[in-house]
Amino acid sequence: MKTDTVAILGATGAVGQEMLRILEKRDFPLRKLILLASARSAGKQLPFRGEMIPVQEARKEAFAGADIVLGAAGNEIAKTFSPAIVASGAVFVDNSSAFRLEDHVPLIVPEVNPGDIRGHHGILANPNCSTIITVTAVNALNAIAPIRSMTVSTYQAVSGAGAGGPLELAEEVEALRNGQHCAPSVFPCQIAYNVIPQIGNAQYRGYTSEEMKLQNEGRKIMHLPELKVSCTCVRVPVVRSHSISVSCHFDVPVSVEAARRVIAGAPGCLLVDDLAHNRYPTPLDTSGQDLVFVGRIRPDLTDECGITLWCCGDQIRKGAATNAVQIAELLAAEESENPEKSPW
Amino acid sequence: MKTDTVAILGATGAVGQEMLRILEKRDFPLRKLILLASARSAGKQLPFRGEMIPVQEARKEAFAGADIVLGAAGNEIAKTFSPAIVASGAVFVDNSSAFRLEDHVPLIVPEVNPGDIRGHHGILANPNCSTIITVTAVNALNAIAPIRSMTVSTYQAVSGAGAGGPLELAEEVEALRNGQHCAPSVFPCQIAYNVIPQIGNAQYRGYTSEEMKLQNEGRKIMHLPELKVSCTCVRVPVVRSHSISVSCHFDVPVSVEAARRVIAGAPGCLLVDDLAHNRYPTPLDTSGQDLVFVGRIRPDLTDECGITLWCCGDQIRKGAATNAVQIAELLAAEESENPEKSPW
Repeated sequence: MKTDTVAILGATGAVGQEMLRILEKRDFPLRKLILLASARSAGKQLPFRGEMIPVQEARKEAFAGADIVLGAAGNEIAKTFSPAIVASGAVFVDNSSAFRLEDHVPLIVPEVNPGDIRGHHGILANPNCSTIITVTAVNALNAIAPIRSMTVSTYQAVSGAGAGGPLELAEEVEALRNGQHCAPSVFPCQIAYNVIPQIGNAQYRGYTSEEMKLQNEGRKIMHLPELKVSCTCVRVPVVRSHSISVSCHFDVPVSVEAARRVIAGAPGCLLVDDLAHNRYPTPLDTSGQDLVFVGRIRPDLTDECGITLWCCGDQIRKGAATNAVQIAELLAAEESENPEKSPW
Repeated sequence: MKTDTVAILGATGAVGQEMLRILEKRDFPLRKLILLASARSAGKQLPFRGEMIPVQEARKEAFAGADIVLGAAGNEIAKTFSPAIVASGAVFVDNSSAFRLEDHVPLIVPEVNPGDIRGHHGILANPNCSTIITVTAVNALNAIAPIRSMTVSTYQAVSGAGAGGPLELAEEVEALRNGQHCAPSVFPCQIAYNVIPQIGNAQYRGYTSEEMKLQNEGRKIMHLPELKVSCTCVRVPVVRSHSISVSCHFDVPVSVEAARRVIAGAPGCLLVDDLAHNRYPTPLDTSGQDLVFVGRIRPDLTDECGITLWCCGDQIRKGAATNAVQIAELLAAEESENPEKSPW
């Protein structure tokens, strides 16, 4: 499809600004970039391909002429503007969770289910950040044998809470250095030198909204409607990149050697797995790049049909901005391959 | 048994100094305290009950007259001195991992298996810190139905690596603040604003020595010889208190209500479990006290016979010093109840 004009909704946030950088870095085939944000941010300018692009207030009329709108705003903003975006003829690639589980809204990790973009009706959804990272890591295992269930504990960076997360962590570290107390506002309690076992709100049987995403979104992305996931999401005082401890359970034994081999060859993954030489993924190592690093691959000692692993990825890049731009690239590629499949 | 004279082997380390404070705080029935450490620390003085006690060099002759020796040193020191300690007639309550899995060495969490002290031959072992915290949290569930297996991911504080851990974290935070590079020596890579999925060395099928302790020690403490534990141990930039994400699997369904009820009444546990009001354990909340806080109790969504929970405890206190002093208290109480059971 045509991708001459791309708009970013929520351009001044952490994910929006990263989308700008990723579009430039990946040389996305666009001629015009429209930056949209709240009235408060209108008038700011952001750099793109050597020029400063002004930020405009997001209004319904602002989407006229756009081919693709990359959504980097929250659920309410996404819901507010989606009718105008679709009516304008643009395709909305939305990073919020507003539409992810809706029928006819493909939920895409390009390395996993690129073909699912064909079913869209003007909206495609970018999955949750931890879900993207986990699914990118384990999808190759799913090709050996369908994943029946996963037990997951996360170690999520403060930047996952938006630009205010790293600021609050830095302020708390500085306050403690000066013998002062912390006054948390972004997080429910002090995150400096602490971990917090709550991300999102209570949603289902004692699990938070964030914890349920991996099951609900993972089912849709990997085409595993019966997948069961028990997840514990924890905020850690890391600036950037989420880490995830995963045990995957199958109906048949999967060898560590096979698991390591398919992950080494899996798109979007980098195998970093040599415990004896202190080589394994850490969030610092994965920050500022697009691959999901996977290591600590070993048998699950509780289940002869299980594989345990550890993965890390930059949740603002692969977990959000890069994945969205990759979806836009799939749309761009559709034109030449299947022009008749375009919904417009 | 008689406990008039207590020696601490490794008195100047983080755990040793904490033992001193716990003996004082719990008003342990002793008349004389002997502080032993390496030649390098000999001559230092440490406060106890308003007096300064000199630290002596640990030599084989130093244990003469001791009734109980609390070991707060590493495996090699423990192995070196254990024959002299036992020969002197003292009981050695050792925090190292040197003897934990040996037959005739009881491995004790006083809330869980106090009766096991009866089988000792002069040495009792204090379990691994994460193991103590986890077992204290889940033992009440084991009374409802035997635990078949556990899937565990840990969030372990830097002080678990000894006094050098918090120093290295502080130095790294300061270096980064000044735009300098980190030069890790205690940890295999930068721990400030990072997490490291390795504690201990590669030991068994891709698991580290630290990761195998929960299975091997848990089996012995909870009298569950078939228990299977799949553990991922991760260092996090927290100064003190370990946090543990646990899924327990049983052969029969265990309700969340029953789990919450028995944990609320379990010795050594404090139930902190109200997600809707942001109440759950964090390592900051548990630092500097002796209870294991347990929360986020919910069904395991992958297993109808599973319970998932989150627990935190001060690994220097309940995970080491307090547990050792509690073992010494069990020995002290033995005198009056069963004087004939004393091995001496």
